[in-house]
Formats: sequence, C-alpha cells, structure tokens
Amino acid sequence: MRDVAIVGAGMTKFGELWDKSLRELVVEAGAKAIEDANVEGRDIEAIFGGCMASGALTGQEHVGALLADHLGLNPIPSTRVESACASGGLALRTAYTAVASGMYDIVAVGGVEKMTEVSTADVTRALGGAGDQEWELFNGATFPSLYALMARRYMFEYGATEEQLAAVAVKNHHNAMSNPYAQYHREITIKDVMNSGYIASPLKLLDCSPITDGSAAVILTSMDKAKEYTSKPIKIRASAQASDSLALSDRKSLTSINAARVAAQSAFKQAGLSPKDIGMAEVHDCFSIAEILAIEDIGFFKRGEGARATAEGRTAIDGEIAVNTSGGLKACGHPVGATGIKQAIEAVWQLRGEASGRQVKDLEYALTHNVGGSGASVVVHIFERGY
Amino acid sequence: MRDVAIVGAGMTKFGELWDKSLRELVVEAGAKAIEDANVEGRDIEAIFGGCMASGALTGQEHVGALLADHLGLNPIPSTRVESACASGGLALRTAYTAVASGMYDIVAVGGVEKMTEVSTADVTRALGGAGDQEWELFNGATFPSLYALMARRYMFEYGATEEQLAAVAVKNHHNAMSNPYAQYHREITIKDVMNSGYIASPLKLLDCSPITDGSAAVILTSMDKAKEYTSKPIKIRASAQASDSLALSDRKSLTSINAARVAAQSAFKQAGLSPKDIGMAEVHDCFSIAEILAIEDIGFFKRGEGARATAEGRTAIDGEIAVNTSGGLKACGHPVGATGIKQAIEAVWQLRGEASGRQVKDLEYALTHNVGGSGASVVVHIFERGY
Repeated sequence: MRDVAIVGAGMTKFGELWDKSLRELVVEAGAKAIEDANVEGRDIEAIFGGCMASGALTGQEHVGALLADHLGLNPIPSTRVESACASGGLALRTAYTAVASGMYDIVAVGGVEKMTEVSTADVTRALGGAGDQEWELFNGATFPSLYALMARRYMFEYGATEEQLAAVAVKNHHNAMSNPYAQYHREITIKDVMNSGYIASPLKLLDCSPITDGSAAVILTSMDKAKEYTSKPIKIRASAQASDSLALSDRKSLTSINAARVAAQSAFKQAGLSPKDIGMAEVHDCFSIAEILAIEDIGFFKRGEGARATAEGRTAIDGEIAVNTSGGLKACGHPVGATGIKQAIEAVWQLRGEASGRQVKDLEYALTHNVGGSGASVVVHIFERGY
Repeated sequence: MRDVAIVGAGMTKFGELWDKSLRELVVEAGAKAIEDANVEGRDIEAIFGGCMASGALTGQEHVGALLADHLGLNPIPSTRVESACASGGLALRTAYTAVASGMYDIVAVGGVEKMTEVSTADVTRALGGAGDQEWELFNGATFPSLYALMARRYMFEYGATEEQLAAVAVKNHHNAMSNPYAQYHREITIKDVMNSGYIASPLKLLDCSPITDGSAAVILTSMDKAKEYTSKPIKIRASAQASDSLALSDRKSLTSINAARVAAQSAFKQAGLSPKDIGMAEVHDCFSIAEILAIEDIGFFKRGEGARATAEGRTAIDGEIAVNTSGGLKACGHPVGATGIKQAIEAVWQLRGEASGRQVKDLEYALTHNVGGSGASVVVHIFERGY
C-alpha cells in the first residue's frame, strides 16, 4: 500500500439551498475540487461518492452513476457508498484504499445530501434509517431522542450540566463566523441555548445540528504524483473504520461509542501517533453530547472530562486541541453524506494554512471523526502536510 | 494486486419471503457462506454489502452496520455500496479490490433486498430511483417503460419479433426448474408470454423480472490462502466497471449499453480472454430485451443477432453459450441488491460442478454481467477454477 495525498478540495456553501438540486450540488463541489487540483477531467480514473438517503429524500438512488454523468466523466467507474451520517468519511476511505492499492492513480471523492426538498417529518423518518429500524425507529425513537439518552446518562454518571453541553454549540457557532461556507453566521450564548426549546430532554434546539443541503469533494492521488498537481499536497497518514451494534440497547455503554474508540486507536496505530500529537480535529457533533463523547473516545480527554473541558475553553481554536474549527455539524451544517468530506476539507485548509480567521497555529497533524447513526459505524482519518 | 478467490458461497431461497425480514435474510445468507467456506467468523476482517433501496423499501439505511451487527462480527469495518440493480456486483468488486490490494486477507460480501413489505406502487417508485429522477421518473417513466423503448427500437432496427424476445423468458423459466433457490418453478411457453398482459408495449408481464426478497453472500480470500479453506477455490480472473448517462435520452444508442461494452472489454483485456472462451454467463435480464442487449454488448453475438440466436436455442444450457443457467433475474427472481452476488454464486457452483440438473459441461470460464438502472452502471466479472 502506497502513500496517498489530497491535492484538491472544493465545496458548496452549506445551508438551505432552495435553488440547487442534488445534481447541481455535486457538480459545483466536484468542479471546484477538480479546478483546485489543477487536474484535467480526463485524468480522473474513478469516482467515489458518499450519500446517505437520496432515495428517501429526493427519489434518486444510483448516485455513483449520477456523479459520473453530471461531472462529464463517463464511462469511468463510479461507486456510491452509504454508512448513514458517516457516508462521506467512508467514501474517502474507500477511495483512499483504491489509490493506496495502486488500482487507480487519480480519483475524485464527493459527498452530498439534498435534505430540504421534503418535510421535516420526512427528513426525521429518513434519518431514522441510520438507527435500528425494527427495534428503535419503528417504536417511536428519533435521533434526537437516542442522543438524549446518551446525554442524560452522561450527566448522571459524570455530573455534567446542560450548560456544559451548551458550550459545544456556543464554540461551534463562534468558529463558523469565519467560515464562509457555514450555514450559520450568528454568535450564540449559553443563555440562547438554554432558552431554546427542548427537542428531547436534555437536548434543546440549539444542541442539535440542522437540516442542510450541501456537497463537498476532494481529489486524491499517490504521494509520488501529488507534486505534479500542487505545491501543498496533504497526506492521508491513517484511515480507519469500525462497527458497533445498530441499536443503543445492545451497547455496553451509553457514554462511550466503542466503534469510535476502535477506529481512533487503529488510526493512531497506523500513524504511529497519539492523541496529544493532534492539533485540530473535526469531530461528529450531530448533537452537543456527540462532541463530548467524541473527544473522550478519541483520547483527547479522559472519560467524564469532556464536558467540563469544553466549558473551560480547552477545545477552542487557541485551546489545547482545536475542535470543529469549521463550525462543526452544528454551525457549518450537516448535509449527512457530505459531512465526512467537509471535515477532510477543513483539515486540508488548516494544514495548508488557508483557514483564514480560524487558523490553528503550528499545526502538524489533523484528525477527522465521522459517525454513522448513534455510533454503529465510525470512520477516522489523520492528515499531515505532504510538503 | 494479487489474485483473489471465492472460497464460500451461500444464499437464501429467492421469492416472496413473508416470514423473513431484511436482517434475517442477510444472516441466513451470510451464515451459509461462512459455513461453506469453513472459515471462523473471527477470521473475517471486513464486510462489504450491496443493497439498492432498503431506505425506501424498509426504512432501514446503514446496511453495512446492520451486516456487521447481525452477523455477530462487530467491530470490523463494514461497507455498503449502492449502484441500483448492480449493487451486488459492485459490492463484489469493492471487496475484490480490498483483498487484491493486500488490505485484507478474508472478507465477506453480501447482497440483499427486501422488496415485498411495501405496495407494488411503492416498489415501482423506489426502483425508479435507479433512473434519472428529475428527467425521467418525475415525468412519469417507469423501468418497464424505459426498457420498452429499448425493445421497440431494437425490433425496429433489426426486425426482431415479440416471440423472439419471449424466448428469453421461456429459456430462463426452464433453467430455473433445476435451481432450488429460484422464485419460480414453472415452465412457460412462448404462447404464455404472448398472452400475458402488456406492461409497457412491447413488454408483457412475462417479459419482466418479478419483485423478490432474497440475500446472497460469498467469502473472498487471496488465492494463496484459498487452499486453506477449500479444495475448490474459484478465482476471480477479472473485475470491471463502467458508467453511462442516467437518462436514456442522453445515450447515442437505445440498442446498445455503452457501459456494458466498456466493462466487458475491460474484463476481457484483464483476463486475456475473448467472448468465445466463456462457457456460461449470468447476465442482467431484468426484462427480456435486457438479456438480448447483454449478449450482444458482451460480444457473444453480433449486433442484431441476439434475439434470433436466443429463439434458436443457441443460449440454452447445451447451446453455444449457456446464458442464465440459474433462471436469471426473470425466473430465479431479482432482489436487486442480491442479484449481482447470486450471479457470482451461480458461476461458482457451475465451475465447481455443483449445478445439479443445469450443469454446463466442460466449463472453463464463467462471466457475470450486472446492470444498474437502464445501463448507467455495469459491473462485469470473469471467473475460473483455481484448482
């Protein structure tokens, strides 16, 4: 297996993009990534795309073929992968494998979700497919309610407060202020979060990531070839993936996601690094509690310390570890299939030194952590400068 | 890239399986494949699954996690790929790449679709997602109508008759008589097909593959390790994939699927073989016309000769090239995500000499051809005995 680099990155603005369809989103992100990589379309040998629920949300499956078709890249192979909200991360990992193996030299990887064409109830139902349909969703659970169970248990076990959870959202809205691609550009306060209505107690509206349209894409090639395309290749230092039970009720713990622990440990082992080497991380904050569990599962903080550490500012851009500099799922937005690729793009921009207004100083290694459902699949990548 | 073999295969019966849910189907097929391979569950390093529309059909996305969970294989990585009706073939190809690259030594690959839990109208809508949602399905096209356009044009260009198309269904129903896993065990005649009602002229009910529940799975390992598990490994000699436009209206021809031609030519080039070397082929006969186009696109017959050749019995089990010995999609059934894996299993059984009652004699090479939608993605594999 050879080393692989990201040589181009591009994304749409994230938000309620009423004037853009699924295919327009992928074309915009794909074209930007291709342009950023200085690669010719005809040099791309394969496409990988992540998308969770285009069938339920837009009526369109067969997203791999759509990508090849609308990027003008027929007849090259194009593969859609789905792993719920980790679809983007898994597309990146699948593409990484294809290049690392030597099967292809240059591939495009995209993620997309068009979520605003159906009612909120229909989106909630479609997203429910990320959990256990027979044992959870059929019986009335929704994703806010599943994460609320985790939050309630975390508060019980560790004495964390709703205000500490709220600090995740406050930080991420602040970070998003300097990200032109973010869905929200609005500072919020702990009081704003506390006063927003309960969705599923203890989670309130501002603890939850929004419904978002968007697409993101990157171009991968081998490290050997990367310098032909860019002076600033970003190396994928590690790629790891793990699974856990679909249903929360089958888990040993509600306050730790085992697939995240396994994937992170695997990534650190591959990279020969430890959590303290990482300078910034994009983690999967679909709900505020999810970011707390993530920073503990990855190993940035000890079990039970994540909420207090966040409230103390230790995960701010100038903190010990900068978490979700893009604004995270909470404020940058969460088009589910695109999120894993957006996380990688934020890592790329940070490592290139191009994250204006939110740049992490002296950054050597960046990590992304992308979760499917309530943790039944997790994909972790580690990146470093390849120049 | 190293050589890869199939060392185990298993599938459920295909049919209207009212008493089996999505997860029960994958567990049955997966357990049979694992047992057939004499492999321990703990030796499996990763899972790949093909499924088209579980979200729309059952409310369950995140099928990769479901596979790992219900096969008892957490926390290993599990990846779902989707390429409409070619999802199974693409899962096999993605898994093949992962083993060929050396990333994993032993992987499980499954395909599944549970289609009978919703109304026929809902299945038709869900399957429509394989085409171009915005330009075809939104405007009222269905899959029978898209293939009917191809059939009508083929008849116009080459003077083929409805009776010749009907011969595909008659042959495939005959072949299915000796396949215990087939949905239908009922001989039909040309007259039966001609007398079945029009679905989309010139295609009648018996020109169309049915709505089916089912799952199929295989175990892959490197050729080097294959002999540890079985005395009859089946080598994957070639794996190829290509894309074409989602919408029929963007194609240069209605009577040839370019992605099939490109994928077949790529597979033959990889294998160093030509169509005349192939002794049996499982091709994608979602409608009778689809088998005719397939045997021409692959190169078994010249352009315009496929319909007459079929009517003359040249694709029968004892013909020049045995096509769809399993009964094909038409009579074995078409649980869309499982079909590509079922095709590979039929090739395995034929090459092992285990296709009792429908065994092709002196078989050296087998080919599978799996189509997504109306041809926007095609996956072709070539198999041979590895012993």
